[in-house]
Amino acid sequence: MAESTDPAPYRFTYQDIHRTVRSIAERIEASLWSPDLIVAIGSGGFIPARMLRTFLDRPILAVGVSYYDDEDRPTDNPRTVQWIEEAERKLGGKRILLVDEVDDSRSTLAYCVRELLRHAPAEVAVAVLHDKRKPKREELPPEVTRYWKGLEVEDRWIKYPWDAPDIDEHDALARGGDRP
Amino acid sequence: MAESTDPAPYRFTYQDIHRTVRSIAERIEASLWSPDLIVAIGSGGFIPARMLRTFLDRPILAVGVSYYDDEDRPTDNPRTVQWIEEAERKLGGKRILLVDEVDDSRSTLAYCVRELLRHAPAEVAVAVLHDKRKPKREELPPEVTRYWKGLEVEDRWIKYPWDAPDIDEHDALARGGDRP
Repeated sequence: MAESTDPAPYRFTYQDIHRTVRSIAERIEASLWSPDLIVAIGSGGFIPARMLRTFLDRPILAVGVSYYDDEDRPTDNPRTVQWIEEAERKLGGKRILLVDEVDDSRSTLAYCVRELLRHAPAEVAVAVLHDKRKPKREELPPEVTRYWKGLEVEDRWIKYPWDAPDIDEHDALARGGDRP
Repeated sequence: MAESTDPAPYRFTYQDIHRTVRSIAERIEASLWSPDLIVAIGSGGFIPARMLRTFLDRPILAVGVSYYDDEDRPTDNPRTVQWIEEAERKLGGKRILLVDEVDDSRSTLAYCVRELLRHAPAEVAVAVLHDKRKPKREELPPEVTRYWKGLEVEDRWIKYPWDAPDIDEHDALARGGDRP
């Protein structure tokens, strides 16, 4: 049970997320850099990546990451559950934009960047909707020199619209809730 | 330029889509059937599949389908651009729910079902947000006996929220627009 001193969670609507993705896309375009393809980290990155595609018009490849081992035991080490067939052919020499919903401990992002770098891309850049202000468990590899965040937020629980059983209730709570 | 006699497009909000996905999930659960995993057809199926995961709590694998050949020439034949590594191990004996946003000509769905059947799953079922009432170019293989549609709609252009450059404009037009 959460203690009453816990800060309220952030709640974002789909429209909030869509506008945040648009602002990321505008900053990417203003940087004069552009990706050859988007890699979405599943499943939290699927929706932001699909929205981003509307603005950047690049194909999406998806990768799933699990924190469970083969016997379904929880583990601290991320493990890819879907990786990209013919990865070398598709990733070699390409500018990749890796997309996830939140940069929390940074472990998942760092793991995925390392996996991508094994396939000799031209570059791996990172975009996240929300970056939590907190000590990170891992740093991104030094090869990552471009990192776009939609918003920097406090270290609170974030409730995303796609996780809502009842979207109307979620939206009502989001309208009355704290904003970063 | 579209002729003035063309019917207006359908426009759906994210909330419309979320509620449609919930209604699909409720009917799947009421059927007492459940998938072992969700396969999302990219990129239109990514957002519906991620929403569906909230209700069905199953992992998502993603597959990309392209209608361009290796030289970027348009083709009538769909071609997978990302398939599932270790597919046999993951799909063999499994109950798969294949998800896309719209059943238009049915070609993409038929192609993906055939691809999935090659990996000896226990079953392939299909869920789409919208099924267009129109003559289909292909039928689904007879192995498919479960097919859930969120809504049956006329054969009009559908504007999904994730394709909107300006989500507020899209939502305003959706509120004033035709409903199926």
